[in-house]
Amino acid sequence: MTTSVKEMLDTYPADLGGVDREAMAQCIQECIACAQACTACADACLSERMVEELTKCIRTNMDCADICNTTASVLSRHTGYDANISRAVLQACATACKACAEECGSHADMHDHCRVCAEACRSCEQACNALLAELG
Amino acid sequence: MTTSVKEMLDTYPADLGGVDREAMAQCIQECIACAQACTACADACLSERMVEELTKCIRTNMDCADICNTTASVLSRHTGYDANISRAVLQACATACKACAEECGSHADMHDHCRVCAEACRSCEQACNALLAELG
Amino acid sequence: MTTSVKEMLDTYPADLGGVDREAMAQCIQECIACAQACTACADACLSERMVEELTKCIRTNMDCADICNTTASVLSRHTGYDANISRAVLQACATACKACAEECGSHADMHDHCRVCAEACRSCEQACNALLAELG
Amino acid sequence: MTTSVKEMLDTYPADLGGVDREAMAQCIQECIACAQACTACADACLSERMVEELTKCIRTNMDCADICNTTASVLSRHTGYDANISRAVLQACATACKACAEECGSHADMHDHCRVCAEACRSCEQACNALLAELG
Repeated sequence: MTTSVKEMLDTYPADLGGVDREAMAQCIQECIACAQACTACADACLSERMVEELTKCIRTNMDCADICNTTASVLSRHTGYDANISRAVLQACATACKACAEECGSHADMHDHCRVCAEACRSCEQACNALLAELG
Repeated sequence: MTTSVKEMLDTYPADLGGVDREAMAQCIQECIACAQACTACADACLSERMVEELTKCIRTNMDCADICNTTASVLSRHTGYDANISRAVLQACATACKACAEECGSHADMHDHCRVCAEACRSCEQACNALLAELG
Repeated sequence: MTTSVKEMLDTYPADLGGVDREAMAQCIQECIACAQACTACADACLSERMVEELTKCIRTNMDCADICNTTASVLSRHTGYDANISRAVLQACATACKACAEECGSHADMHDHCRVCAEACRSCEQACNALLAELG
Repeated sequence: MTTSVKEMLDTYPADLGGVDREAMAQCIQECIACAQACTACADACLSERMVEELTKCIRTNMDCADICNTTASVLSRHTGYDANISRAVLQACATACKACAEECGSHADMHDHCRVCAEACRSCEQACNALLAELG
């Protein structure tokens, strides 16, 4: 898959204010990939016979998907940039990704979809923390 | 308008873990009302002749709408409750609402839609902070 | 709960193109109320002991919540109005609400949250169809 | 960028009901890429000096982003699959992508971000129509 995340950053018509474009593009991409993995994992869990043991996982997946999608949208906007909003949303995203990586990770050996999703969550958490460090 | 926020809380089939139902219902309702006001305000700003002076307002409106919608969804879920995710998302929501209330408030005397939106943002910020205080 | 849906329509700074404001406001309000009810119902189903019999309901709830939220946002925008987009999204919303009302309605006597949610879905379906009839 | 869209489909624990996995994965990926491009393009338009001539483009971008995100989520769920919902949402998505491709395309030679976004919209429209043809 090719997204145009990087191209959209490169064609932005105004100053991006010294942001690290690589860290920004990476974080947006991880967020949208993680949101999709979490939405799909919630539904895959619903199809498992042991669904009643996976209800916490499903809920955490749904929270994480919503937060990742919102984070991707906030980071895709640069006009009238407010670092406080970006920071707060990145912190919420890192928190949700960490929780979801742990939850999915705890039964990754039983459910392949949880293994794949836990990896997406860990990747996204790292990208959020890397961008947070950049923003200072 | 009547929403079923309170009724959905009252028909929840499991323990809500001692949460203050009034504070929770109030916060969910403020979040969904604020999200709508922000989406509508962004678009109303696009229809103003002085749109080029309102671009920061439009962007803040869009960030705030996304974050409020996500917060309403996270708070509407109780299964496998994770206070860390709720807290992080409420903090992001309070931050976005405060920024949007200030931005919209700064030209509320010129644009009625910004005045109405600023009130919705302030109400929502208060409800988020009240629930955060409850969660401890 | 008071939302500012009607006030935001009334403070819109440009022509709304002859839209029926009551039908529009009603539909936006039903959409955001229905989205919240569906999100909460999906989670309430996750907390039922018979969750494995409710997986279709949970999935339909989640689809309906996403579509209702998107419909509310599209309808809250009037600048550069494109009736084709509004119509297509209203049709998708009416379809999802009908499916969700039937699914939740089929076990409304067993689960109070499904009864409340089915009512919200039916109300929203009607509001979408009423607005579709208005749009011609 | 690598997403786990295909991997999530391949690790799904139940029958996918004869869906064409390639068409499905392609469509989900196009939807999430298009949503991001549209969100970024709306914001890039806000940073153009001629923003007052781009308000229709911004609005169409926002509608298209919301609809693409919702379509990606609906398609990522397979439990209790309801072809009517998928079809209705794919039709709304194809409609929004077509409108946005035309709008962005009409000033693609002036604004590089609109050129990139128009390509993402056209790709997504094709993927939606291809999947619609598959669903029958």
